[in-house]
Amino acid sequence: MQIHDVLQEVAAGRLSPEQALPLLGSEREADLGFARLDLHRLQRCGVPEVVFGEGKTLAQISGIVRALREREHPILVTRLAPDMAAQLLQELPEARYHDAARCLTLAPSEPPVLVGCIGVVTAGTSDLPVAEEACISAGHMGARVERIYDVGVAGLHRLMTRMEQLRACRVLVVVAGMEGALPSVVGGLTDQPIVAVPTSVGYGMNFGGLSALLAMLNSCVPGITVVNVDNGFGGGVAAALINRLGASA
Amino acid sequence: MQIHDVLQEVAAGRLSPEQALPLLGSEREADLGFARLDLHRLQRCGVPEVVFGEGKTLAQISGIVRALREREHPILVTRLAPDMAAQLLQELPEARYHDAARCLTLAPSEPPVLVGCIGVVTAGTSDLPVAEEACISAGHMGARVERIYDVGVAGLHRLMTRMEQLRACRVLVVVAGMEGALPSVVGGLTDQPIVAVPTSVGYGMNFGGLSALLAMLNSCVPGITVVNVDNGFGGGVAAALINRLGASA
Amino acid sequence: MQIHDVLQEVAAGRLSPEQALPLLGSEREADLGFARLDLHRLQRCGVPEVVFGEGKTLAQISGIVRALREREHPILVTRLAPDMAAQLLQELPEARYHDAARCLTLAPSEPPVLVGCIGVVTAGTSDLPVAEEACISAGHMGARVERIYDVGVAGLHRLMTRMEQLRACRVLVVVAGMEGALPSVVGGLTDQPIVAVPTSVGYGMNFGGLSALLAMLNSCVPGITVVNVDNGFGGGVAAALINRLGASA
Amino acid sequence: MQIHDVLQEVAAGRLSPEQALPLLGSEREADLGFARLDLHRLQRCGVPEVVFGEGKTLAQISGIVRALREREHPILVTRLAPDMAAQLLQELPEARYHDAARCLTLAPSEPPVLVGCIGVVTAGTSDLPVAEEACISAGHMGARVERIYDVGVAGLHRLMTRMEQLRACRVLVVVAGMEGALPSVVGGLTDQPIVAVPTSVGYGMNFGGLSALLAMLNSCVPGITVVNVDNGFGGGVAAALINRLGASA
Amino acid sequence: MQIHDVLQEVAAGRLSPEQALPLLGSEREADLGFARLDLHRLQRCGVPEVVFGEGKTLAQISGIVRALREREHPILVTRLAPDMAAQLLQELPEARYHDAARCLTLAPSEPPVLVGCIGVVTAGTSDLPVAEEACISAGHMGARVERIYDVGVAGLHRLMTRMEQLRACRVLVVVAGMEGALPSVVGGLTDQPIVAVPTSVGYGMNFGGLSALLAMLNSCVPGITVVNVDNGFGGGVAAALINRLGASA
Amino acid sequence: MQIHDVLQEVAAGRLSPEQALPLLGSEREADLGFARLDLHRLQRCGVPEVVFGEGKTLAQISGIVRALREREHPILVTRLAPDMAAQLLQELPEARYHDAARCLTLAPSEPPVLVGCIGVVTAGTSDLPVAEEACISAGHMGARVERIYDVGVAGLHRLMTRMEQLRACRVLVVVAGMEGALPSVVGGLTDQPIVAVPTSVGYGMNFGGLSALLAMLNSCVPGITVVNVDNGFGGGVAAALINRLGASA
Amino acid sequence: MQIHDVLQEVAAGRLSPEQALPLLGSEREADLGFARLDLHRLQRCGVPEVVFGEGKTLAQISGIVRALREREHPILVTRLAPDMAAQLLQELPEARYHDAARCLTLAPSEPPVLVGCIGVVTAGTSDLPVAEEACISAGHMGARVERIYDVGVAGLHRLMTRMEQLRACRVLVVVAGMEGALPSVVGGLTDQPIVAVPTSVGYGMNFGGLSALLAMLNSCVPGITVVNVDNGFGGGVAAALINRLGASA
Amino acid sequence: MQIHDVLQEVAAGRLSPEQALPLLGSEREADLGFARLDLHRLQRCGVPEVVFGEGKTLAQISGIVRALREREHPILVTRLAPDMAAQLLQELPEARYHDAARCLTLAPSEPPVLVGCIGVVTAGTSDLPVAEEACISAGHMGARVERIYDVGVAGLHRLMTRMEQLRACRVLVVVAGMEGALPSVVGGLTDQPIVAVPTSVGYGMNFGGLSALLAMLNSCVPGITVVNVDNGFGGGVAAALINRLGASA
Repeated sequence: MQIHDVLQEVAAGRLSPEQALPLLGSEREADLGFARLDLHRLQRCGVPEVVFGEGKTLAQISGIVRALREREHPILVTRLAPDMAAQLLQELPEARYHDAARCLTLAPSEPPVLVGCIGVVTAGTSDLPVAEEACISAGHMGARVERIYDVGVAGLHRLMTRMEQLRACRVLVVVAGMEGALPSVVGGLTDQPIVAVPTSVGYGMNFGGLSALLAMLNSCVPGITVVNVDNGFGGGVAAALINRLGASA
Repeated sequence: MQIHDVLQEVAAGRLSPEQALPLLGSEREADLGFARLDLHRLQRCGVPEVVFGEGKTLAQISGIVRALREREHPILVTRLAPDMAAQLLQELPEARYHDAARCLTLAPSEPPVLVGCIGVVTAGTSDLPVAEEACISAGHMGARVERIYDVGVAGLHRLMTRMEQLRACRVLVVVAGMEGALPSVVGGLTDQPIVAVPTSVGYGMNFGGLSALLAMLNSCVPGITVVNVDNGFGGGVAAALINRLGASA
Repeated sequence: MQIHDVLQEVAAGRLSPEQALPLLGSEREADLGFARLDLHRLQRCGVPEVVFGEGKTLAQISGIVRALREREHPILVTRLAPDMAAQLLQELPEARYHDAARCLTLAPSEPPVLVGCIGVVTAGTSDLPVAEEACISAGHMGARVERIYDVGVAGLHRLMTRMEQLRACRVLVVVAGMEGALPSVVGGLTDQPIVAVPTSVGYGMNFGGLSALLAMLNSCVPGITVVNVDNGFGGGVAAALINRLGASA
Repeated sequence: MQIHDVLQEVAAGRLSPEQALPLLGSEREADLGFARLDLHRLQRCGVPEVVFGEGKTLAQISGIVRALREREHPILVTRLAPDMAAQLLQELPEARYHDAARCLTLAPSEPPVLVGCIGVVTAGTSDLPVAEEACISAGHMGARVERIYDVGVAGLHRLMTRMEQLRACRVLVVVAGMEGALPSVVGGLTDQPIVAVPTSVGYGMNFGGLSALLAMLNSCVPGITVVNVDNGFGGGVAAALINRLGASA
Repeated sequence: MQIHDVLQEVAAGRLSPEQALPLLGSEREADLGFARLDLHRLQRCGVPEVVFGEGKTLAQISGIVRALREREHPILVTRLAPDMAAQLLQELPEARYHDAARCLTLAPSEPPVLVGCIGVVTAGTSDLPVAEEACISAGHMGARVERIYDVGVAGLHRLMTRMEQLRACRVLVVVAGMEGALPSVVGGLTDQPIVAVPTSVGYGMNFGGLSALLAMLNSCVPGITVVNVDNGFGGGVAAALINRLGASA
Repeated sequence: MQIHDVLQEVAAGRLSPEQALPLLGSEREADLGFARLDLHRLQRCGVPEVVFGEGKTLAQISGIVRALREREHPILVTRLAPDMAAQLLQELPEARYHDAARCLTLAPSEPPVLVGCIGVVTAGTSDLPVAEEACISAGHMGARVERIYDVGVAGLHRLMTRMEQLRACRVLVVVAGMEGALPSVVGGLTDQPIVAVPTSVGYGMNFGGLSALLAMLNSCVPGITVVNVDNGFGGGVAAALINRLGASA
Repeated sequence: MQIHDVLQEVAAGRLSPEQALPLLGSEREADLGFARLDLHRLQRCGVPEVVFGEGKTLAQISGIVRALREREHPILVTRLAPDMAAQLLQELPEARYHDAARCLTLAPSEPPVLVGCIGVVTAGTSDLPVAEEACISAGHMGARVERIYDVGVAGLHRLMTRMEQLRACRVLVVVAGMEGALPSVVGGLTDQPIVAVPTSVGYGMNFGGLSALLAMLNSCVPGITVVNVDNGFGGGVAAALINRLGASA
Repeated sequence: MQIHDVLQEVAAGRLSPEQALPLLGSEREADLGFARLDLHRLQRCGVPEVVFGEGKTLAQISGIVRALREREHPILVTRLAPDMAAQLLQELPEARYHDAARCLTLAPSEPPVLVGCIGVVTAGTSDLPVAEEACISAGHMGARVERIYDVGVAGLHRLMTRMEQLRACRVLVVVAGMEGALPSVVGGLTDQPIVAVPTSVGYGMNFGGLSALLAMLNSCVPGITVVNVDNGFGGGVAAALINRLGASA
């Protein structure tokens, strides 16, 4: 239940304040000195607090993870280097590190039932890390994920043979670098919402992914939306929020 | 019914080819010489063929509109200058021109029942034309739209008093120019999918909307997706595709 | 015969200098005061002197055209505004103005036999002026041209039904704006040389064609080459030079 | 007393040249060969000579620090790497190294009484090093500093609970990366001068801080001024100059 | 009195709610349909509601001005074209149009006593409109302004002869286009806070003022802050907020 | 024979399906888990599957090479670091590593007869690696290659003495960094198709090759086409596709 | 005589202050209200005060010209539109307007003897206005000018036949748009100082002259210096200052 | 004597071909396999062949240096890393490595008499390496050089005390990073030709020197010319070519 739903129940007398308290949690922030955890983000925004691993020390990440775990929060650490993951896993043997996605997850004792279906589509092999970050992030938010990889526009037959699979999804995350054409081609063949994720993959000068980003923003297929370059996390979260709408059906 | 659903019905013997034919339409393209209309786009992609008015002559637009009308297609012309609209209206008195949005619409004889709810939010008065283009486009695709205008971050209290209205929507389109901060602020307070639309509104140097575009792509709130600068049409279509998922609930 | 071939014939004694003289022309440059015509460009580079109409006065263009005509040169004026064309046509009734391409041509008394085949492909209706400039330019250099228009990636079936026509060409000029994806898709389906021409067509922010230009330079299909934005003339000339290689077969 | 005040006193006969001399210092520049110290900068510009540590050798920094110290100048070294700081501290055990800010300071024997109050506000944890550089620099110039950290727009309630603290300051330094929205939000809630400092913190493509820089320059709140990306030093100095105006009250 | 001061007085019992009401105003917003006026901005942020004239119709500006006037608000319209100003003046003969600044002002019946002193400095004649916008804006907020024009770095002696005047100011607004060097030179000679305003003035390619903007952000003199290109209004407001600190002395 | 030729032969009864099968290959894709090889690319696009070495592990490259070799495909690995090449050569002693080009090749047991002639021209010594990548790529596709190196515009006499050699080629690849002027100069002296390859070579600020790229896109010689910066592979493939047209003569 | 020479003569007793006065002029600035003329610029910098016509009203230009003329200053107005020139000429019949250069000049009663020789070289016809601005500006400063026009790199023979003329100059101004290659080619053939002037002339996307500017800054020929895009005035002044050094020989 | 002078002497009969031969040198190019030395560059362009050390191996540099030395050419290697310099010096003990400039020089047995005077001026200590590269390069071409360092605009008095020294030079090279203001200030005080060299020195975001480059191209002082960022070599060569004109006086 979201925070405003709780409050409406209280206002309507259907919940006593005492009953509402644990639903809201006993604390809204956890101040660790070096970081302040937003423990109500899930209730407020539908997205749990997530740890961005890049640029943090092992001690900082470990401290945050411990604090979240004590409060029974589900845990997701993104952009975590393999060597730091190895050290964290010694401390948290029940956690799992996803190599390709460079993410660490630790589901709560009762993992959520996965609902709906998000199709994650990539143009080429090099786009895989970004796509996996999207998959793990969406799964973390309770979405079922279908992977449809390496179906770029240089060989369209590969995409054509996967159309049934694409159509079975509620929302699509399309990941591509270089000329970033795949979202347009997929968008011209299907009727789901599409979240396009440009990557920085390229052979010559692509200005760190600008070529794919601009292509996706300028797609001739209306209704395609875009997140930042290499931001698989953002793409996965956006798709999970959309997937949930259909999931309640 | 979408095109692949029709085909599956035929394959399953639940529809005869004769019954399927009108559902698919008797023709897939209409070739007008100067343009080729994609009459199956609605069935294939969930978005009807739309006329982009900018850079077309009156004769061209009039020809396309007539061809769509003969086939009972709903009509939407975007980026249509007022003087050209006035001339078109003489020919099509039952059409309607939306000044602020610069769009012309002509609903089919039986207009669709509007479903769900899309909240269209703007930062300032100057963002209004882009927001209206989004509203008209979303409405054209069968979505109910709620307008929440002029609630930019320079006076946050204006946003706070509209929270109930925001929370009643299935998906939000947030339109802002200048520093493009509004999607982040809204995203930190709600749990719906957000489609951010940057505008080219600015006082000094904003590189034609690049400042707002970059800000939205770099939002610290995960799950916000973005369309191109001033692309209200794209924002409205994206929101309508998402709105439909929830609408079937 | 090219200029160095003539010289080799002279060196080999197969041509007397007297015979060679008219083949080389009696003059190499025509100095009109405001312009200096390079009359040997055709022999030297395989491309005749062409008049770039933009930014020249009627008197200048008229003077250049007259000077070329006295010397029996074929005439092509590009980027010529309709009103100036109308005035030129009064002076040169046997010339022809191509509206869409904004080019004026005047073939020599014995027009060349068109050889080979260049396919000129466009993504959308708005790319037409650039494509037509390419067609006229290539035709001016003696190439047969096949037009395959409005087959953009938003509706791939349109392209698929034209594959036979595409495969019958020796070289393809692919013209596209917005996300510039068409050259990659065509390149993944055919084995001819492809010259990609980005256009400045777009809905939102495309930086005057930069989105399409970057996309084409970053194509995942190897072997695609690119000319400048909206440069139909350059694309047509490049294709004609390539077409000639096969044409001699 | 500033240099022109001294001169006016001399001109008015209220100071003899002999009395003025030590106030002006016996020398205006110290030439160390590899650097020329501007010993009058404090009197002339209100900002003491500061050592920019980046790109200098230990010997150079040590030489400059020694020269300043002999002349009883207060010492601030910015952008100083930890290993070089450790070596300097052996030579100058009474100095202090500030880890987060990467600054070394050595106050004069009689440290100045801190006056006024500068509020230094950050959006997130990663902005901390830039904010600390601002704090140390402002403190070095005699300003009292209040830290209000990790109050970014993704969770506005964190900012709301600190409003009293914000309003008690004379001037605010607001530090933010990513979409750089915090200065606008703070500026819409308070009436002090605001110096905005963009940082290069980001998840996807932010062009090294350009997204935050452009956002701050395009703020819809009038009166916000901006310094360069990651330039905490500049932000701190600007705020200290402003703070002094109020401080004399 | 600012809004929080009023509330503190009420909380302390020094003001009754009845006494507080008129101090807070009877309304916080005026909704004109096409615009929503923020009537509390002055109390909240220290800057009154200002009308940005560019892109508004005469009817809109006239409506806003009338609404502000009824409530006894001081009026400032910026970026107002001369022909629209002439029409407005017929309706408001007691208003005044400032040609160079392109601003219209109407002071309240009791104009405020001007306090402090802001020096507005320009490099060249072409920077004058931006400087005048700064002067009018600062004056509107109650600051006394001193103009020091046409003292660019190409002839430094012009600046040197104005040093006394510069030093008498509390804060300086330095306006320059082209290479934007003037703020650095002034900053090396004085000890006041400096707000630098880049202009789009240039001879060759300056990217609409980017050259001056980058120069000012990269000034070698610490403590200079910058507003957006041609944003005289922003520069004037920033300086007025700073000037007020000293003004209370 | 290309794939559609085979199919036409089958349709015409000139080939039985059994005869056609091996010509088409028994499989169209090879799925290695981490990569999916497009085994029909040669038949479909005229360019064999090529391995892009950058960013792949030794195990991945080795796996792909082995899979291609089992199927008797010719092998080309581009952008392969020397140390990885050394390890691959132990496994594949009959392969050959080209130091300057950083490519590894392994021709099929019956290497193709080289046809036609591609001239690869460079401006300076530093452009050599890019040029060699073009040579190896073109050779891999069956083209004879002529190297004409170090003939940049700073000393035109070096180019003039090589004109005979240039004219003997069917198509030219012109490689240059810095100001990228060489393609224009060569294009003004010859009549072949020219593929221009900009390189990132430069002394000062050239934005990673943007200076040469822009220069080539803006060449005053019509008909020059361009590939991405440092993309010798793309330039070589494009030239080989063009060379083939003439080669059949 | 320059200003410091005059002062040295006075210091050495070779001039009395009375004799020096008229050499220095009776006034250093002329304040016209809307402009402040720097009457000593010629003595101080070697370049007389020049009027930049763009963006000034007729009254302003006329006022400045009159003030300069009263003081017997030579007059040069650059970037002057033809219609304004026509009006000025009625007032100043002895002045001369140069159409192509868009400059107006009025030599002093005793025009200076032209010395040395500056070669002004252009690539194409469209570069002519910029080149003429350079010629008039250099002539205004007393330099003899030689025009060598339309010798771009697309037809090198045109340049080769003018080598004698080029070598007779002391300094060269080379003007080119598009790929901006001409300065490099000229620089590889001659040994004079070269001032390169990029122009905004182009066919496709050249970013307003950025392509030529970058090419010239990245020239492979050392010793070429560059001025801003289309800045013929700056190029002419620079060349005149250099020409003077040789002229005194 | 330059090459064309020699030829004119031969044509006039004042030199026999036998006498001319050694003046022209017995060879025009030295082909080392990996490089082709342009041995006539000095005679043709006035600048000797110079070795750009960056990106070359020790063996390559050593080979080139040996080849030049055998032919008695003066030697200059720029951008040479200290460790490679140390190895070269073992082979060439009579050469000299300039640490700050990162250049190695070896004068011919009879070093040239230095003529004229070039002033090399810097804004700050960090600009020193670029300035030293300019000094060494200019000296290598026979120019006397005067160093005037650390006189940036933050403390103008430092520049004022060096005016005599500046005025004694024939041409000035002004080196500055950050806001790049120094050339404008110097240009407003002196009448010599100025070559401005921007550097990549900066505190915050300066886009690798773009801020200083743009500032210098947009200088309000006419006649300043610019070379590429950090290109001290180019600045020194340009100044030496200019210095020579005056030197013959």
